[in-house]
Amino acid sequence: MDRENKVLNDDDDIESYSEKDMDERIYSQPLLTKRRNTTSQIAIVGANACPVESLDYEIIENELFKQDWRSRKTIQIFQYVLLKWAFALIIGLFTGLVGIFNNIAVENISGFKLLMTTGLMLKHQYYKAFAALAGCNLALAAAAAALCAYIAPAAAGSGIPEVKAYLNGVDAHSILAPSTLFVKVNGIGSLNIFSNLLLLVIFTLASCAFDTASLIGQGGSRKYHLTWKWLRYFKNDRDRRDLITCGAAAGVASAFRAPVGGVLFALEEAASWWRSALLWRTFFTTAVVAMVLRVFIQLCSTGTCGLFGEGGLIMYDVSAAKVSYSVPDILAVILLGVIGGIFGSLYNYLVDKVLRTYSLINEKGPAAKILLVVTISLLTSICSYGLPWFATCIPCPTDVSSRCPNIDVSGNYKSFQCPPNHYNDMASLFLNTNDDAIRNLLSTSTSKEFHLSTLFIFFCAVYCLGIITYGIAIPSGLFIPVILAGAGYGRLVGRLFEPITKLDVGLFGLLGAASFLGGTMRMTVSLCVILLELTNDLLMLPLVMLVLLISKTMGDMFNHGVYDQIVKLKGLPYMEAHAEPYMKHLVARDIVSGPLITFSGVEKVGNIVHALKTTGHNGFPVIDEPPFADSPELCGLVLRSHLLVLLKGKIFSKDRVLAGDELVRRIFSFDFAKAGSGKGVKLEDLDIEDEEMEMYVDLHPITNASPYTVVETMSLAKAAVLFRQLGLRTCAWYQRVRGGLQLSES
Amino acid sequence: MDRENKVLNDDDDIESYSEKDMDERIYSQPLLTKRRNTTSQIAIVGANACPVESLDYEIIENELFKQDWRSRKTIQIFQYVLLKWAFALIIGLFTGLVGIFNNIAVENISGFKLLMTTGLMLKHQYYKAFAALAGCNLALAAAAAALCAYIAPAAAGSGIPEVKAYLNGVDAHSILAPSTLFVKVNGIGSLNIFSNLLLLVIFTLASCAFDTASLIGQGGSRKYHLTWKWLRYFKNDRDRRDLITCGAAAGVASAFRAPVGGVLFALEEAASWWRSALLWRTFFTTAVVAMVLRVFIQLCSTGTCGLFGEGGLIMYDVSAAKVSYSVPDILAVILLGVIGGIFGSLYNYLVDKVLRTYSLINEKGPAAKILLVVTISLLTSICSYGLPWFATCIPCPTDVSSRCPNIDVSGNYKSFQCPPNHYNDMASLFLNTNDDAIRNLLSTSTSKEFHLSTLFIFFCAVYCLGIITYGIAIPSGLFIPVILAGAGYGRLVGRLFEPITKLDVGLFGLLGAASFLGGTMRMTVSLCVILLELTNDLLMLPLVMLVLLISKTMGDMFNHGVYDQIVKLKGLPYMEAHAEPYMKHLVARDIVSGPLITFSGVEKVGNIVHALKTTGHNGFPVIDEPPFADSPELCGLVLRSHLLVLLKGKIFSKDRVLAGDELVRRIFSFDFAKAGSGKGVKLEDLDIEDEEMEMYVDLHPITNASPYTVVETMSLAKAAVLFRQLGLRTCAWYQRVRGGLQLSES
Repeated sequence: MDRENKVLNDDDDIESYSEKDMDERIYSQPLLTKRRNTTSQIAIVGANACPVESLDYEIIENELFKQDWRSRKTIQIFQYVLLKWAFALIIGLFTGLVGIFNNIAVENISGFKLLMTTGLMLKHQYYKAFAALAGCNLALAAAAAALCAYIAPAAAGSGIPEVKAYLNGVDAHSILAPSTLFVKVNGIGSLNIFSNLLLLVIFTLASCAFDTASLIGQGGSRKYHLTWKWLRYFKNDRDRRDLITCGAAAGVASAFRAPVGGVLFALEEAASWWRSALLWRTFFTTAVVAMVLRVFIQLCSTGTCGLFGEGGLIMYDVSAAKVSYSVPDILAVILLGVIGGIFGSLYNYLVDKVLRTYSLINEKGPAAKILLVVTISLLTSICSYGLPWFATCIPCPTDVSSRCPNIDVSGNYKSFQCPPNHYNDMASLFLNTNDDAIRNLLSTSTSKEFHLSTLFIFFCAVYCLGIITYGIAIPSGLFIPVILAGAGYGRLVGRLFEPITKLDVGLFGLLGAASFLGGTMRMTVSLCVILLELTNDLLMLPLVMLVLLISKTMGDMFNHGVYDQIVKLKGLPYMEAHAEPYMKHLVARDIVSGPLITFSGVEKVGNIVHALKTTGHNGFPVIDEPPFADSPELCGLVLRSHLLVLLKGKIFSKDRVLAGDELVRRIFSFDFAKAGSGKGVKLEDLDIEDEEMEMYVDLHPITNASPYTVVETMSLAKAAVLFRQLGLRTCAWYQRVRGGLQLSES
Repeated sequence: MDRENKVLNDDDDIESYSEKDMDERIYSQPLLTKRRNTTSQIAIVGANACPVESLDYEIIENELFKQDWRSRKTIQIFQYVLLKWAFALIIGLFTGLVGIFNNIAVENISGFKLLMTTGLMLKHQYYKAFAALAGCNLALAAAAAALCAYIAPAAAGSGIPEVKAYLNGVDAHSILAPSTLFVKVNGIGSLNIFSNLLLLVIFTLASCAFDTASLIGQGGSRKYHLTWKWLRYFKNDRDRRDLITCGAAAGVASAFRAPVGGVLFALEEAASWWRSALLWRTFFTTAVVAMVLRVFIQLCSTGTCGLFGEGGLIMYDVSAAKVSYSVPDILAVILLGVIGGIFGSLYNYLVDKVLRTYSLINEKGPAAKILLVVTISLLTSICSYGLPWFATCIPCPTDVSSRCPNIDVSGNYKSFQCPPNHYNDMASLFLNTNDDAIRNLLSTSTSKEFHLSTLFIFFCAVYCLGIITYGIAIPSGLFIPVILAGAGYGRLVGRLFEPITKLDVGLFGLLGAASFLGGTMRMTVSLCVILLELTNDLLMLPLVMLVLLISKTMGDMFNHGVYDQIVKLKGLPYMEAHAEPYMKHLVARDIVSGPLITFSGVEKVGNIVHALKTTGHNGFPVIDEPPFADSPELCGLVLRSHLLVLLKGKIFSKDRVLAGDELVRRIFSFDFAKAGSGKGVKLEDLDIEDEEMEMYVDLHPITNASPYTVVETMSLAKAAVLFRQLGLRTCAWYQRVRGGLQLSES
């Protein structure tokens, strides 16, 4: 029952645990139900645990719903549709603005930091320079960690695994809180800019958009008195899910300036459930994001955004290089893909191990969290300032257009400690914003710019730092560290293959990044499009596809994608799209245990309260019995949350009679609208007197007369597919019928 | 019952027809079943009609299947997975090769034709020139039409609507025949190259790939003795569907040299059912296509492919133009999108009307078909040769790099009848291959190249020719005519807006093409990526997205997408993803009619034969009765095709006993593997003696014990979602239980 709460402590055998968990989770009780903890049981669990509930993606077609649906006027339906699009627009605008705000802040703050460091370096005040750099990083990191630790613990990490789980139907509490959004925006926008910590934040943008979406989806926040009546139509998990899908797409689109890539990311990685109307809305959202970005880039090109200057829609343009497809090129690329896939899956393995260790530390409280962040930040500062000292100075090439050496904020050819007309290649990579470092690694026609040894050291350092950085208590992402490490690796391989291939080392950098991304994330089409939109080189497409296919295949041999791993590690009961092989050998009957609790069509209040108290089931079948029916027959399914609302309404009658008509007059569909997670009526809120316990309540109006059902001989595999494809949470289950429908106990 | 066969004759009211048809189709009988005609009933229908059956996408988990599944060795499973990928590889290779072959043939044949015409023009033999042009066109068109009319009528048209319907679960017979593939390849590859007929063929490539896929999927053709035993695992509709999805993606990828666009096309437009594993396989297939194309383009760049010379992976490169985003630009683009959307939906409307007219003509037999093709071909020749005479000659610009006037095969600035140093702008568009015409329309920094009047006449002519050309009996597509008309329209608008906008007219051409595509096809993401891959200008992405959104919205106000329209017009019972609003008011019980026919677990042979003869149902529920069960209970569902195989095997017993064990020893899962459509055992093939009619047969081994079921109070909308999401064909239906399970008649 509280299995899901043993999150991150369970070090022994997660693999077998989750398989066992699988059955229990989905098909727990005589009533087939995707059972996660229900609200009332969360209270039992300690504060550190992660309470998990299922989302109701099914339309509950009960009498009240049908009545409401019939009475809806055309104008209301139109309003509803319009609102959906308006929300998509708002999400797009907001995400675009946050993306730009974040970008400008990053460029300015880290630019300032680098300028200061470089200034002190020029005056040969090397210790002061280090102090400035480390101090800046430390302050930013500590502030972000504090925000994260004290205000919104859910804001830590990239947010993608949570989004993925949410769209799969897992409702992990605090993801949706407005405070999470606040911390995310602030954390990534201004504080967490110790960007040399290598984990820029790209991906949190996605969860940012996701949070906005969910905030809208909740119809405003009740806590901050921001709730609107006309949002009541959106008070259900289905519409929230759609908004959050749009949010995920918008986030990626904004982070990479890749609108189509964003849509595909939402489709391939995030969403468990998809329909064509959603594709269109998502596309609209990312188009808005693209427009916003475009407008701001135009505005900033005049120099009004401080140090954020150039940078068009294409972040790392490599289109200048000539692509060749000779046999040695292809062979080199295949080798690159194979090794990249292996490194990628190793990355996943190590991230997993590190996350398990960190979860032990993070459990010790906010202070421990902050301490961890500070340690990592210091380590990063030491690496990025210390390692360049080992590099030998290189004389500036004479034929390049960019300034050399460069004491500016961005660009290649950092001077560091080198004499005039020399540059430090290691510093060009380490003492730079991530964007610039990637740009340098992907720069074409500059094959000799970096020493082989520099590339090797950089790759190793970034690979390790990336692994130990993810999982500390700040909003951070995986994409940028992986791209950095991959680009370094690719450029290294490119240098090694230089004698036999005509492909530019910059393009090798791109392919290396692709191989790492494919090896860790295991996406194909969306990564392909994102990389295309990042680098603007369509002619590379066949090679990028090849590398992605190879590295994904290699990676899949060893372990799962990194987001799947994290979802599993967090104990979120993610439901896979396909059934496990062992399920084919079981039937629905096999995994049912314990007595079945049903209600009569007109049930005694006391019975209902008792059932709600003693069980954690989310749904109960309703059986019509004589005198209301000739023989016992299944009337439908009633949900816990609806029962609670009904009981709170206290529309009871003394006698056992059908009181549905009166009930329908006094209670409305909106009363049953689902509030944000954990905000609905709770069992403890009920205040039912003893005499009321003996009264009756008519369950017919709130009974879902269209439950999906399975026969008990249905194989488990097919039942799982049913659950997943239709996004079900509960499913009535027909027991073997022996002279009548036996949906009662035993 | 034979409603679906009144295809294309039914001129009065298709709209209401298909709504009424909807219920009947899906929920026909007491047994809820997506009923299309079953094999036995097709014979009744005339030869002209289009017999429609449903595909079985559900896994039939009967005893035989389970046994087979348990006995499968790891090596066999590995072999199966490997084969899947091998097939994807083969489809990719084949499609890529056909694409290249087609391209080379087009360039060479139409190049030869144009060279001849131009040569005669230079000698001032104008009538001879026309005769040569029209003669070539006529011969090619007539040959393609003859192939199409006599050998494979299903090869006519673009094939996309058929693929779409197939993936939705509609099995329209002859689409899958190998002869169709043959005609497609030949028709598009070499014959149907009267490319000035404006309908180049792009899209048939998709159905080509689709045919290959289905040929593989059928495990070789039995007719041509090409069947392999190790393909037996693929003898089911599920795997066939997967292969065909790959084929659709590969076709588009090959036609537009757009691998990612191909995947997205398959996802957004073609497939009704999707899973992430399929995404990956499709991606692999298109990657193979991209590789094949790349290799051949490299090979041909040395001039070994005749007139097929340059042309890289990017077909119409516009990346040279500078993109601007000022307010007037945006306004102009919005207006362009609005008008383009309206023209697009008008296009759909007219295509629909023309198709209805043509279907009357085509019904009259092959000769009428060929005559129609010849007429259209002549009309096209007259247009393309006659209209340039009205254009005034333009002096050659002095500052262009390309030759002017040009008497070469491809390129701008056709000389036609003009004096030296002048060119005929109308001839540059009409007397060219489609590819070159589009390239000319999208050419940037040449804003004055075409007269306003030329663009207007070209747009009108192409718009009308495109409409009357689709639907004649040759393999032809919709994409290229729409792009041509759209590019002409866009360039026209660009010229008109020249005073106020800074956007290049070539880019306006691109946006015009986008608006027409959006207005007719109503796709978003896939069109966006295809256009991106065609033109290689990422900076245009936000504008292309904007135009697509606007034109799709405009178009949706008036009618459906063109492929949806054609599917409907062909009478293919396509099942929409979402339920119609009226379905919410009905429950499953409401649409059930007629008596329910069930079988006992051990049934008399005579009863089965009788039921198969008198009904057209595809599935029958099996009820276990005493003595095999305590009370009547649902055992599962048995399929018509399986019953036929069982009866053919003649494993009967004299007494009413459970003979399942013996049966399982004598009959294997493979015997029930589904042959290609219309090739399974037919009722007429059975030869059962009178005494055998009195014997019994045990149905348990072939009974699917895991049928999906619905309760009778289930709303129709939810039942429809169940059918669509799970790809069901038949679904057991629980009647209201009155003292026992009444799944028997009445």
